[in-house]
Amino acid sequence: MKYELYYWPEIQGRGEYVRLALEEAGAAYVDVARGARGSSAMMKMMDAQGTPPFAPPFLKAGKLVIGQTANILLYLGSRHGLAPKTEAGKLWVHQLQLTIADFVLEIHDTHHPLGPSMYYEDQKPAAKKRTAEFWDERVPKYLGYFEQLLDGHGGAYVTGRKLTYVDLSLFQIVAGLRYAFPKRMKAFEEDIPGLVGLHDRIAARPNIKAYLASERRIAFNEQGIFRRYKELDN
Amino acid sequence: MKYELYYWPEIQGRGEYVRLALEEAGAAYVDVARGARGSSAMMKMMDAQGTPPFAPPFLKAGKLVIGQTANILLYLGSRHGLAPKTEAGKLWVHQLQLTIADFVLEIHDTHHPLGPSMYYEDQKPAAKKRTAEFWDERVPKYLGYFEQLLDGHGGAYVTGRKLTYVDLSLFQIVAGLRYAFPKRMKAFEEDIPGLVGLHDRIAARPNIKAYLASERRIAFNEQGIFRRYKELDN
Repeated sequence: MKYELYYWPEIQGRGEYVRLALEEAGAAYVDVARGARGSSAMMKMMDAQGTPPFAPPFLKAGKLVIGQTANILLYLGSRHGLAPKTEAGKLWVHQLQLTIADFVLEIHDTHHPLGPSMYYEDQKPAAKKRTAEFWDERVPKYLGYFEQLLDGHGGAYVTGRKLTYVDLSLFQIVAGLRYAFPKRMKAFEEDIPGLVGLHDRIAARPNIKAYLASERRIAFNEQGIFRRYKELDN
Repeated sequence: MKYELYYWPEIQGRGEYVRLALEEAGAAYVDVARGARGSSAMMKMMDAQGTPPFAPPFLKAGKLVIGQTANILLYLGSRHGLAPKTEAGKLWVHQLQLTIADFVLEIHDTHHPLGPSMYYEDQKPAAKKRTAEFWDERVPKYLGYFEQLLDGHGGAYVTGRKLTYVDLSLFQIVAGLRYAFPKRMKAFEEDIPGLVGLHDRIAARPNIKAYLASERRIAFNEQGIFRRYKELDN
């Protein structure tokens, strides 16, 4: 069975957390919306009767259609050795992924504090205020939490010696913050040596390294979650 | 075993989705932080080594400590007949709960668009803009989605004839929007007859009815997710 991933074709976005898990696992999948007529296939799935997803990303696994990034990872984690085998362990890494999902939403809100339907250009002053608060309060809180977990479990991966999908997502968070806020992130990185090390270890894993060098990895850009706006990075 | 729920003692907030599930199930639980020295017990758990939660609510179930609202409901749903028994069914209701969690965050952002650390009073103009967009775009999108699901599955509950924790959460969404935006919600309710009916059916269930009439139900107030600010409701 080949998985079918449905997500906007132009951005990494929330689909990227799923792509990284599929790539690390070496799972066979099609990135449907990036193919010809793929976007309309995606919209059709969302208009379906029964159990249509609210928004992409969603994953088709045989007859199952699974929506919500963290939910997809919950499913993939068990099947591809990217999560602990015990119920307690599964709940724990899922909890961490949901905390990352909250952080991702706050990252998005730095450039869209007045809501997702208005253009960035129409909410610049609010974006500046929100971004200042984000770097003063939220980044230290979220990344400080994960740094402490990493440190407390030996430093290799967030849960200890075994990689989970949460580590892959944290790689993406570090890479994304570096892209969007090069100046701010550079200054902040000395506070999170563990996460920086984790980022580098993930980037060096053979499957991830091959993925990042391939055209399957969409480049960061100003339509995604992580956007580089000079005026927000100072 | 008695569950221990840890959440801020003054508000319904995200803890309420867990409380409603525990109450409907008739499960034995203590609302720890509402007791004497309960808040400091909660803070202590968050400072623990090992697998500390990032934020409340979290639930202690024997030795397990489970954080993130939707994750707690995933756990409780299986144990108390508040979710389907099949894997596909479990993933589906969890996916819906995660969509509700996204909506809850957007509800919170109507009064805190510039971030959770600043006072509402310091972000009123931004809150007005965000609230306008919320009612123009986001409420119809989210509630329209759930209304359609309800309608497509026969109208009794979101997944069909059996109640799940998602139905309890949708009750809370309708009740909360009525509290926070009485004028706007009144005008909008004609578009969501199914959800209004669902709200009423949930409120009439014996365990929920008893809970809502008890002092265990904290009243809505202006520290929670749903806040009544006259200037945002017009």
